[in-house]
Amino acid sequence: MNLKKLAQDLNLSVSTISKAFRGSYDISPDTRARILARAKELNFQPNPMASGLRTQKSKTIAVIIPEIANNFFTLAINGIESVAQEKGYHVLIYITHEDKSKEVAFMQHLQNGRVDGVLMSLSGNTEDYRHLDHIKELQIPIIFFDRVYHNSATSRVTTDDFQSSYLATQHLIDRGCKRIAHLFVSPKLSISRNRLEGYLMALKENNMEISQELILDCSDEHQHDQVKIKTLLEIEKPDGVFSSFEKLAMDVYRVCEEKRIQIPHHLKIISFSNLEIASLLKPSLTTITQPAFEIGKKAASVLFQSLEKKSFKIPDEHIILKSVLIPRGSTGV
Amino acid sequence: MNLKKLAQDLNLSVSTISKAFRGSYDISPDTRARILARAKELNFQPNPMASGLRTQKSKTIAVIIPEIANNFFTLAINGIESVAQEKGYHVLIYITHEDKSKEVAFMQHLQNGRVDGVLMSLSGNTEDYRHLDHIKELQIPIIFFDRVYHNSATSRVTTDDFQSSYLATQHLIDRGCKRIAHLFVSPKLSISRNRLEGYLMALKENNMEISQELILDCSDEHQHDQVKIKTLLEIEKPDGVFSSFEKLAMDVYRVCEEKRIQIPHHLKIISFSNLEIASLLKPSLTTITQPAFEIGKKAASVLFQSLEKKSFKIPDEHIILKSVLIPRGSTGV
Repeated sequence: MNLKKLAQDLNLSVSTISKAFRGSYDISPDTRARILARAKELNFQPNPMASGLRTQKSKTIAVIIPEIANNFFTLAINGIESVAQEKGYHVLIYITHEDKSKEVAFMQHLQNGRVDGVLMSLSGNTEDYRHLDHIKELQIPIIFFDRVYHNSATSRVTTDDFQSSYLATQHLIDRGCKRIAHLFVSPKLSISRNRLEGYLMALKENNMEISQELILDCSDEHQHDQVKIKTLLEIEKPDGVFSSFEKLAMDVYRVCEEKRIQIPHHLKIISFSNLEIASLLKPSLTTITQPAFEIGKKAASVLFQSLEKKSFKIPDEHIILKSVLIPRGSTGV
Repeated sequence: MNLKKLAQDLNLSVSTISKAFRGSYDISPDTRARILARAKELNFQPNPMASGLRTQKSKTIAVIIPEIANNFFTLAINGIESVAQEKGYHVLIYITHEDKSKEVAFMQHLQNGRVDGVLMSLSGNTEDYRHLDHIKELQIPIIFFDRVYHNSATSRVTTDDFQSSYLATQHLIDRGCKRIAHLFVSPKLSISRNRLEGYLMALKENNMEISQELILDCSDEHQHDQVKIKTLLEIEKPDGVFSSFEKLAMDVYRVCEEKRIQIPHHLKIISFSNLEIASLLKPSLTTITQPAFEIGKKAASVLFQSLEKKSFKIPDEHIILKSVLIPRGSTGV
């Protein structure tokens, strides 16, 4: 028994039969069910390496992200899916939970034609990148977005992290802040370093003192972050906070509520955030809003150029889409 | 050339070779790369139906959800992953964007051993369920959560939608509301119907009039919802709103801000919501908070019982985990 004989038996084309085994959605569920049922009766299992199946693409791309409870990533995924949908591709999402070993495991899992390409945002504890070199050997195109690997010879899509952070810090200085704290996560990531650099540059250009006590690494567990932030606010008494991470801004709000620190009177706060309801908070939150949807869309567009045209070489390029500073109540605007 | 000869050539065990081709993460990336490189040199492609590979499970489960920018689903996924991680399984996430045709396409895509089991929450426009019957033929276990298919002979995990909605409506009545509106989405889903029934029952038991004008289907586009809600608040002048969907509550907040309708003075509002920052809104939002993490965890636990023990028959059972009503500022508490 082979595909051709099964096709004759069912009075269908070989192409239809192979579509049934490939899980193509060009044929109806009923036809598929009929084909699979007959194959089962005849005890026929197709060889997926057979000609009709081998050259077939999976019509699937993978998105690997560090976390899902994050408005930036949910919007970026929507941007990716807007392109994938147009191209008739499935999108699989893998969450690493900031765990590099999961990142490695996923990359291995993606081999053997499971997906045609990968869009990836690195986990926070990624230090060596051998697993990423490996996928290049497998010749699956990979594009980075947001948390990118700058030494990769591929396209990397981010916002203007340095410039946005510089402007965020300058905004606090313009609003009268003298002691500005910076909250960040995952110091190993280039976006974290760029954001820190932007903050430092703004202080420097304004001849303001740089104090290590005001720079807080919040990569730990959620509970620890709140304790750390509480200590920071009580001991160091900053009058401004620049948060590089949405969740940390919410922690600051909670601590201020508990400690009756008035925002923006006692403390002004600005944060990287794609929180849709930033304007409904008490007080409304001043944000640096990334073009999250557009970042996902752009990364996906480059990937699909590569998928659609074998001769297209993905440029080794850093694509930067600008963020927008939206002044609101938390900085007294 | 076959697996055995390749193993001899490389001086490795057949088991290691087959792990390399299976994408198992029991072997190091380096070993894998070496094996694949040698196979390529020898122009050897293994037959995935060969004995060593055929019986292998994918060690992967799929989660199919209608949307991702939703705190319920992100928490439920975390619950699912907490179990999958313990069991050493990958989790793939598929988003249907409330589109049944994507649901059908995904189900087809999942065949042929791509995943060992499925956890699923239905899209809003699912009307017929033939695609779900189909996966039963394929003998992949499928468990429903939240938006469930009640006629399936499998386990279904939800919260107590009817009872929670009854209590939410009663809460508004207790707070003095006389004209209570209900906002819902996807009337075809059983959870939507159960929530509506809970609302109607509470009105009935309190001898309050049921007005069709106060019951609003908000299944449309986001922009339309805000217009609809604006019209509802202006024309029907409800003094209470029970929202079955977090996003709609945020729309009500926006409309109230624009129209200077004071919450809770002019209008009280309660909503199903897993918004972590409900307490930071202005005013803080009274919520019916679902045990989202636990729902995901429970659904995954039942699935893994089935995956680990072939003889385990998934019970045809509706598992209900209770929600909690958390009174806050939006109902004047």
